[in-house]
Amino acid sequence: MSNPQQIKRDDVQNRRGSRQTQIDRVGVKDILHPAVVKDRNGGEQQTVARFSLCVSLPRHFKGTHMSRFMEILNLHEHATVRSFHEMLFEIKDKLEAETSHVEMSFPYFIEKSAPISRVRSLMDYNVTFIGRLERDDLQVKIRVAVPATSLCPCSRGISDYGAHSQRSLITATVHIRGFIWIEELVELVEQEASCDLYGILKRPDEKYVTERAYDNPKFVEDIVRDVAGRLNADDRIAAYTVESENLESIHNHSAYAVIEKDKTPNTEY
Amino acid sequence: MSNPQQIKRDDVQNRRGSRQTQIDRVGVKDILHPAVVKDRNGGEQQTVARFSLCVSLPRHFKGTHMSRFMEILNLHEHATVRSFHEMLFEIKDKLEAETSHVEMSFPYFIEKSAPISRVRSLMDYNVTFIGRLERDDLQVKIRVAVPATSLCPCSRGISDYGAHSQRSLITATVHIRGFIWIEELVELVEQEASCDLYGILKRPDEKYVTERAYDNPKFVEDIVRDVAGRLNADDRIAAYTVESENLESIHNHSAYAVIEKDKTPNTEY
Amino acid sequence: MSNPQQIKRDDVQNRRGSRQTQIDRVGVKDILHPAVVKDRNGGEQQTVARFSLCVSLPRHFKGTHMSRFMEILNLHEHATVRSFHEMLFEIKDKLEAETSHVEMSFPYFIEKSAPISRVRSLMDYNVTFIGRLERDDLQVKIRVAVPATSLCPCSRGISDYGAHSQRSLITATVHIRGFIWIEELVELVEQEASCDLYGILKRPDEKYVTERAYDNPKFVEDIVRDVAGRLNADDRIAAYTVESENLESIHNHSAYAVIEKDKTPNTEY
Amino acid sequence: MSNPQQIKRDDVQNRRGSRQTQIDRVGVKDILHPAVVKDRNGGEQQTVARFSLCVSLPRHFKGTHMSRFMEILNLHEHATVRSFHEMLFEIKDKLEAETSHVEMSFPYFIEKSAPISRVRSLMDYNVTFIGRLERDDLQVKIRVAVPATSLCPCSRGISDYGAHSQRSLITATVHIRGFIWIEELVELVEQEASCDLYGILKRPDEKYVTERAYDNPKFVEDIVRDVAGRLNADDRIAAYTVESENLESIHNHSAYAVIEKDKTPNTEY
Repeated sequence: MSNPQQIKRDDVQNRRGSRQTQIDRVGVKDILHPAVVKDRNGGEQQTVARFSLCVSLPRHFKGTHMSRFMEILNLHEHATVRSFHEMLFEIKDKLEAETSHVEMSFPYFIEKSAPISRVRSLMDYNVTFIGRLERDDLQVKIRVAVPATSLCPCSRGISDYGAHSQRSLITATVHIRGFIWIEELVELVEQEASCDLYGILKRPDEKYVTERAYDNPKFVEDIVRDVAGRLNADDRIAAYTVESENLESIHNHSAYAVIEKDKTPNTEY
Repeated sequence: MSNPQQIKRDDVQNRRGSRQTQIDRVGVKDILHPAVVKDRNGGEQQTVARFSLCVSLPRHFKGTHMSRFMEILNLHEHATVRSFHEMLFEIKDKLEAETSHVEMSFPYFIEKSAPISRVRSLMDYNVTFIGRLERDDLQVKIRVAVPATSLCPCSRGISDYGAHSQRSLITATVHIRGFIWIEELVELVEQEASCDLYGILKRPDEKYVTERAYDNPKFVEDIVRDVAGRLNADDRIAAYTVESENLESIHNHSAYAVIEKDKTPNTEY
Repeated sequence: MSNPQQIKRDDVQNRRGSRQTQIDRVGVKDILHPAVVKDRNGGEQQTVARFSLCVSLPRHFKGTHMSRFMEILNLHEHATVRSFHEMLFEIKDKLEAETSHVEMSFPYFIEKSAPISRVRSLMDYNVTFIGRLERDDLQVKIRVAVPATSLCPCSRGISDYGAHSQRSLITATVHIRGFIWIEELVELVEQEASCDLYGILKRPDEKYVTERAYDNPKFVEDIVRDVAGRLNADDRIAAYTVESENLESIHNHSAYAVIEKDKTPNTEY
Repeated sequence: MSNPQQIKRDDVQNRRGSRQTQIDRVGVKDILHPAVVKDRNGGEQQTVARFSLCVSLPRHFKGTHMSRFMEILNLHEHATVRSFHEMLFEIKDKLEAETSHVEMSFPYFIEKSAPISRVRSLMDYNVTFIGRLERDDLQVKIRVAVPATSLCPCSRGISDYGAHSQRSLITATVHIRGFIWIEELVELVEQEASCDLYGILKRPDEKYVTERAYDNPKFVEDIVRDVAGRLNADDRIAAYTVESENLESIHNHSAYAVIEKDKTPNTEY
């Protein structure tokens, strides 16, 4: 505190000063770090997460201490969901902030059995934890990005045979007020697509998913509404955003839809 | 309307129905289209824009008409800022929606003179227009993404010589209530960086920008606050978000800060 | 040449020196610049191109002159295919190099008529010109990246109804020894996909493209072989690479194939 | 082999046929899969790799078996460098190919001590293994992408104070004929930049790296030549490509250089 460099730094940091504005979030972004995430089967999986770590900065503070974010992150040799929570408190504390923000985004694997052959293979999903701690109020959102098959009802309805299908990316961001497994969210979303995806499909599986999608056509509107219906029915979810982007196989653009809902209108989200 | 296909389509679109949820935005995304943008010098520049076109969809509507978005876009052989506004009305009208959304994002060029040699060269900026028309209420935001030099005050303060600098991307998204040139926004942002960038710099220019950045060190906090100060002072701007991402030259991550402000707290933004 | 700064620069540039290695390519990369490209209909279209400009650097040269690349580019207010060729000569000349390299990559629009309704709309393609001038030997390659529909023959063959389709990106890079329109290359590729894409499809068009893809199933192997067959038959093409990446709608990965062929084995490509 | 589905598949795959072209590479691309990589300290690190798996396909084969690639990958619960080699043989064998190709690309962490404070933190690097097995000839390349600081000698030379620096991405792709640690390659590259990067830098460290870069200015030409000099001197390296892309802090484009060298000119690379 009283060493010459610190004095020099304070000097640098306060040279300007006066009529400052509050900064909503300031910190470090796009840091890769090893992470370990527990899965529903009692195991845990090692992955690599991309982190952003921020604080709010009141108007009377000249600047934040960038290296402290990195020190806190590096104390967690492997970041876990638990350390995700701890970091929110550590950052708020060590950086003397009113509000801390942590975001961690990582590929997550779920082993799935092919629908007929039961051959097992991994599917990867992008998962993001978004945390915000303001005084004692901790809010956590989970986002899962689920690639899936969509098959166009209109194409099916008007064609003598066939129907165009494509890969869609369905993203659900949920503000949770209880515990929820990543696997639960992924399954919930997958069940509302025309069909879900697999790493390995043998021939009878490929027949199954082809016919399943054809039997279950969905517009982009249907996908987001059907996922929303499921999220509405889950009391652990206080608010959500659900999006679908369909990489149309007959166009060079995407069809897109989004529903945003706060189920607790009296609570600030 | 009464042809068999239309009947079939309505059938498809209403097969489900009933207990539907409102969709906040539904439409098409990531369409490239030629665009023409007027510049402050009285000329106009041809560019290529990436469009998203959406409507809100009330709960009692089964789906929207995706091809109509593309028809409206293709009526504008070259999209202009004027047609950006027209499209908001056309989409709301033709798709019988309460709210329409149009986003167009494009590279924009400004010819700049090097600071000493006055050699002229083009600099490119990414510009986005974001429009939302709800009943009669039209809201337009402009976003400019301005690459610039930042030079670290701490590094300068503690080092016997030198100071690390890096490229930063400073993004200002402004909700306007009057007319503002893209060039004005870009200049406003550039003036608050350690130094602005140029396509061509001759040797005396390179000396100038090197020394200018050294004389004008800025933390990421300073950059967003100084841009915010300028936006606060401009009455044409009702609300804004200003971000800076500094691609640190001494780290493999970015320093980041954001300020969001609504200057008219009584108005819904 | 003899001004003090130039002397100083030479000094800087030759301070090290001695046991140098030849540099294959050195220059500037990722510069956006306005471009104008003539189309087959006699018109021209304005677009924005991303440029790379390089030279080879012999071992006895300490360094190149980065600002000269930008000066040459900025002399071409709007880059054309003609100025693409001129830049190769200008760069080789002004930078006293044995070999110059220019790459320009841009979105290009083709107006297409929907297959049944004949409704017209724009489709965008990414096009790249790759030029290399070594002494007097000029070699030019054109790359077109063509998004298209692929429909899986296996899925069709084994399923009672339906067949999965997806968007594919088919890329042909051709070393030309004569003139060829971008439109010719794009059409050649599109004709070998299961079906080509359109900006606007009305209902009868959507029926057509759905059934057309179903009638014309192709594995990724078929696509690259069929395009290769067409390129083999075109005498204006001396060598080529054709790739297809199918964004499988039943997997979260792509199927991929590539064929590289030099039709003139005695010539160095 | 003789089950009805297999017959049906063969039927699908041979329906066309005849005058086929050889396919250089066909397979699956962009698959995420868990991986474990041994580090030089005797430990191992868990990461997530992006895989491409391909074979060459002779002209008389109608198609390859896409699901077999995924089966082979999924047999390796966690891919290692050893399984990277095994997969090359397994793919060549199970798909009855003359040539197999495997590429795995992953973030890799090295714990580094800050230069003065010795504070330890992780730095991440993108590493790629590229393997090709043709009959009995196995060729392996390793690519490391190393972010580093470059400081411009010209800017330093002409300015009264300061010198612009920026983040550079230096990529070395080496064809090895012996064993080499990832750490060795990364260090070799880092030592030839103006300065290397760190996750955490305390104030005395920041002073050190600032002055170190200033004392060690490098053009993009110097960087690739100096790395090339090191690779020339290492007998374990048969051939290499070294690139540097400097994200100039005074321009909105990059400076770029590349050297490609085969040290064994009599051997086909």
